[in-house]
Amino acid sequence: MIIRSALTLLLAAVPLAAQVVAPTAAGYRKEFGTMWTFDAPPLEYWKATYNFSPDQAWLDNIRLASVRLPNCSSSIISSRGLVLTNHHCARSCISSASPRDTNYIDVGFVASSVADERRCQGLYVDQLQSIEDVTARIRAASRAPSATVQAERRARAIDSIQNACQQSTGLHCQVVTFYQGGMYSLYRYKRYDDVRLVMAPEEGVAFFGGDPDNFTFPRYCLDISLLRIYENGQPLAARNYLRWSSQGAPEGELVFVTGNPGSTGRLLTMAQMEYLRDVVYPENLAAYARQLEVLREVTKNDPERARRYDNTIFSLSNSEKAVTGYHSGLIDAELMAKKRAFEREFRARIAKDPRLRAQYAGAWDAIAAAQRELASFDKASRYRSFAGSQLLSMAGQLVRIPAQSALPDSARLPEYRGEAIERMKRQITSATPVDTQVETRLLAAQLAAAKRALPAADPYLQAVLGGRTPEAAAPALIGGTSLNDPAARKALLDGGAAAVAASNDPLIVVARRIDPLQRILSTRARRLNALISSEGEKLGQAIFAAYGTSLPPDATFTLRISDGVVKGYPYNGTIAPYRTSFYGLYGRSAEFAGKPPFNLPARWQNRVDSLDLAAPLNFVSTNDIIGGNSGSPVINRNAEVVGVIFDSNIEGLPNRFVFTDEVARSVSVHSSGITEALRRIYGAGWIVEELEGR
Amino acid sequence: MIIRSALTLLLAAVPLAAQVVAPTAAGYRKEFGTMWTFDAPPLEYWKATYNFSPDQAWLDNIRLASVRLPNCSSSIISSRGLVLTNHHCARSCISSASPRDTNYIDVGFVASSVADERRCQGLYVDQLQSIEDVTARIRAASRAPSATVQAERRARAIDSIQNACQQSTGLHCQVVTFYQGGMYSLYRYKRYDDVRLVMAPEEGVAFFGGDPDNFTFPRYCLDISLLRIYENGQPLAARNYLRWSSQGAPEGELVFVTGNPGSTGRLLTMAQMEYLRDVVYPENLAAYARQLEVLREVTKNDPERARRYDNTIFSLSNSEKAVTGYHSGLIDAELMAKKRAFEREFRARIAKDPRLRAQYAGAWDAIAAAQRELASFDKASRYRSFAGSQLLSMAGQLVRIPAQSALPDSARLPEYRGEAIERMKRQITSATPVDTQVETRLLAAQLAAAKRALPAADPYLQAVLGGRTPEAAAPALIGGTSLNDPAARKALLDGGAAAVAASNDPLIVVARRIDPLQRILSTRARRLNALISSEGEKLGQAIFAAYGTSLPPDATFTLRISDGVVKGYPYNGTIAPYRTSFYGLYGRSAEFAGKPPFNLPARWQNRVDSLDLAAPLNFVSTNDIIGGNSGSPVINRNAEVVGVIFDSNIEGLPNRFVFTDEVARSVSVHSSGITEALRRIYGAGWIVEELEGR
Repeated sequence: MIIRSALTLLLAAVPLAAQVVAPTAAGYRKEFGTMWTFDAPPLEYWKATYNFSPDQAWLDNIRLASVRLPNCSSSIISSRGLVLTNHHCARSCISSASPRDTNYIDVGFVASSVADERRCQGLYVDQLQSIEDVTARIRAASRAPSATVQAERRARAIDSIQNACQQSTGLHCQVVTFYQGGMYSLYRYKRYDDVRLVMAPEEGVAFFGGDPDNFTFPRYCLDISLLRIYENGQPLAARNYLRWSSQGAPEGELVFVTGNPGSTGRLLTMAQMEYLRDVVYPENLAAYARQLEVLREVTKNDPERARRYDNTIFSLSNSEKAVTGYHSGLIDAELMAKKRAFEREFRARIAKDPRLRAQYAGAWDAIAAAQRELASFDKASRYRSFAGSQLLSMAGQLVRIPAQSALPDSARLPEYRGEAIERMKRQITSATPVDTQVETRLLAAQLAAAKRALPAADPYLQAVLGGRTPEAAAPALIGGTSLNDPAARKALLDGGAAAVAASNDPLIVVARRIDPLQRILSTRARRLNALISSEGEKLGQAIFAAYGTSLPPDATFTLRISDGVVKGYPYNGTIAPYRTSFYGLYGRSAEFAGKPPFNLPARWQNRVDSLDLAAPLNFVSTNDIIGGNSGSPVINRNAEVVGVIFDSNIEGLPNRFVFTDEVARSVSVHSSGITEALRRIYGAGWIVEELEGR
Repeated sequence: MIIRSALTLLLAAVPLAAQVVAPTAAGYRKEFGTMWTFDAPPLEYWKATYNFSPDQAWLDNIRLASVRLPNCSSSIISSRGLVLTNHHCARSCISSASPRDTNYIDVGFVASSVADERRCQGLYVDQLQSIEDVTARIRAASRAPSATVQAERRARAIDSIQNACQQSTGLHCQVVTFYQGGMYSLYRYKRYDDVRLVMAPEEGVAFFGGDPDNFTFPRYCLDISLLRIYENGQPLAARNYLRWSSQGAPEGELVFVTGNPGSTGRLLTMAQMEYLRDVVYPENLAAYARQLEVLREVTKNDPERARRYDNTIFSLSNSEKAVTGYHSGLIDAELMAKKRAFEREFRARIAKDPRLRAQYAGAWDAIAAAQRELASFDKASRYRSFAGSQLLSMAGQLVRIPAQSALPDSARLPEYRGEAIERMKRQITSATPVDTQVETRLLAAQLAAAKRALPAADPYLQAVLGGRTPEAAAPALIGGTSLNDPAARKALLDGGAAAVAASNDPLIVVARRIDPLQRILSTRARRLNALISSEGEKLGQAIFAAYGTSLPPDATFTLRISDGVVKGYPYNGTIAPYRTSFYGLYGRSAEFAGKPPFNLPARWQNRVDSLDLAAPLNFVSTNDIIGGNSGSPVINRNAEVVGVIFDSNIEGLPNRFVFTDEVARSVSVHSSGITEALRRIYGAGWIVEELEGR
């Protein structure tokens, strides 16, 4: 699965200058991938590579048909506003549409007609109306002598552009940072907030193979759901939508993916990649493993807990597998050698020109020095925190809210500014009770890790352990606190600084001691990350200066169009076919004796004989995608839907840093597998007719 | 596929001394694997590991039921002498049993009853009757001051033991060298030479997936054939045979493989492994690639040539894939580190004891020095040869036969001794015509490789190229020679030294010049390899001295019993099931649009509906196997057949040097897949009834 991951890259973007030119075939550098923006489609490169020259109407149509969900991508696929996305993108919609006694996640849902479609709570769809380059405006507004003031002014300029746009157009407006601040664009979206559920398969077949098969191919998932946009209570009369291809794409065919990749790190320096490789990812992986071990154990023989932690476990496993994949790229000598060679060449170009050298040559070393300094106190800042327990985290917020509230907004810690602090207060007072048994285990695991990582005399360990073992301290803290009672939390919140200072609650006592330790380090880290951002922005400009701009910008969860080809690849000592089949689905289920996560829903078991088992189910292509692309349509040159992206293979994960297409593949549900299943398994002929324009 | 490969290890064995003790659980070292001999079954280790204690009758029965084919393994599986082996082990039998107008390889064969079974030309089955330790006799007979005389005497002692045995028992007797000469055993076989074909599936399903899927899993091959031993014109009334398990083995079950692994290199020193890694394997791989490139090109649009070179291409591809797998082990830092650690420990044990140190401590360095010297002229001896063309090779033989015939037998080059020279003469005069077009291409490729590898002034290049390019020299040599005419070859053979000396045939001229160049280097290499053998033999003794003998000897194409467990494994970022299904077979075929080598025979397409598609087809286990094990039965603790070995996965290839079972697996056809196919696809209910003892 390639849901947009919680993982964000180290670089927060800060702007300065840019001159963006449309990419050319000549200047195209494969390692930077193909996540093209719609205001700079690589027309010459497409023509040279595929002899394909779409006109503006083609581009406009697919832009308007490729709509964004809050965390995913999707597309309009009928004149009546039918929307195709992944099952895993519509999970909350499917849950919210379920009646009290049934869970459509488990049993699936098929509307019997339009009238039977079910409203999704809180789901909306954003349609990209237009893009405007606002780099010059932002640059002009954010001139200032110091980086800090620059950043403040820039933030204000962005706010003001967004607000003005919103007021004048009624659209949702967002200023997007490209090339680490080399360019700013204003993206205007029309938001549709009446979205209804038309069809969702059972999760057992949507996420067939579960965590083991996640991020792999060959694959057998009907990871789709069908929604419908309504406007004024009626199905949207869509002017722009994608036609359906019942045949799908054969091997070798050119296909495009239009969707919203979340984040990539292709412009990172070697020092930044080494920091991820040696510091961030190993620690993240250890943390996932630690939490998963606890959660798997406590849910093992406890079906109710298993249900409760199901999403958390899935999300942690998904992150663990994804980060393992990213990390595998960084420990791959060949990939790093490629990156090193590029950086050497890039630096040489900058060094050759005295003007460029003066402006940019220092950035790499400045970033490397900052990364080294961050690494030097990474463990301390990682563990001197409120992490490891929801209750401890709330204790930390209770300690900080009075102090932060007393400060002017701009002087607060970033997470306590603006509306955030009010949201935090609401959450603290309303949160449902915490599972203290699990909480105790998780905190004990966190404290044990901290004890291994920090010197014995570390003040954090003094504060939380006070000489006890992690196994003794955790139950004492969680068992002794009253913070699991929302009323107790409200009393402390209402009581303000005085109540917090007077509290003997063991978690509050601990949080008071952690608070200053944490603040010192987070301030220091913020300063270093700001420096890395502003140096990174120089590199964003330097890359234009050195290479022109045949390079698509790093992903920003905004609409991109990626070209690729439907294609099998070498795998497991043999070859992976470009597509799988329903035969394969039933085979993999039988081979694991139908045990979860390889069990098939009853409907699938009962109707096996009605299916064309040889029909394609999933397929792979060389398109450039990453988390956030989930639900993206895959289209052919006629702008017909041949599939829907739902994952990357594991070989594709290192593409986060360097794009390759030897064995990296995007994984999609095949359009003819979708129609076959709709017709034969779900008896949803009316939907197929709508798809086919009848 | 794990047919016994042409690859033999560097070490020819030379004997000295040994004291073999039955292995114990305590002394078991996993890295040396589980290829146990039947005279030293690891009873304590089995008991400790599996709580399994077979009695002697159990062992005797499976020994007598596990019969050997000329290049494969097999087993007797009914009281009427039915034999199970792989399809690829019975290829020549199946061909020879085919009538003129039909090829059973392509269309398969099922006897309608016993009376319908077809005689196989030249196939025999060897049944191991007994094993006797003859180490002391051979050691006594081969004492001599020099290594050369020792070797001569040893060879004579072996001959005389074998002949005496043969005369007194009427059995086929073979003295087998174990532990690089640490131990000698006399193996006595009863040979059955009336073997008939009962059933063979179509090659399309026996070798489904062809070269791409070869050495991989998940896998979908019905790689079986059924033969029957006849005695006095009647089906053998077998006292010892294996019962059939229609259920097969579930995951986790203990299973044994009894068969004849061809060769392993687990006792090799680091220097020997490095020599394989850096010298032998890279050159072998280049040679395979070179020949395959030519053969694939010339057969591409030429169906008749494609048929003619089919076996050669398969055999080269198989070797290429196998050697790539072996090589991958040697370039694996972890594997080499394990080996290095063992060698360091082993050397330390030897160094600690003054007596052992005096006897053995020098062996490693002596071997390393010899390997270095071999490496120093490897390229010269590889290319200064008659390789690259069948006609050139025959020219070489024609030049040498008169000279070698004139020498006393013991003074000849080894390949011209005894009966060999007469066999060679027969081949030279009878050989079918050579395809000169292919011959020219192959020779040109060989010469081009030689030109890249050798200095321009090398006398070999002077002799064959004489200033021409390889592309000019090859057609001149092949076009100009008359050696493609058997009569011309016979004339030269009959004319003897004078005719050869007078010949102007361009290949004879070239062969006369290559002859002395080649002889100098091969003599030097022979001396070094003899030295490596005799030092390797010391290490064979040293290992007993240092470790006792819980270690099974390296494979020798003699009967072994290997324990293992039926078990899936991590693969491709997910998990491989322990078994596949007919669903998977049809799926993989559909996913490649039924194109070769993923096409299914008509019978399989027509009868798909009669099959239980969920039934198991292939499965994997952790047994220790290698080329030669093809056709080995897989049995459970009740000595029932649960499958038949036909391959190793690609992860298992490095097991040649260090045994592991994390992801290395043996691949078998599942017994219930066999009965399902026999019944539903082949309508061979009578065979199933015989298997099931009805």
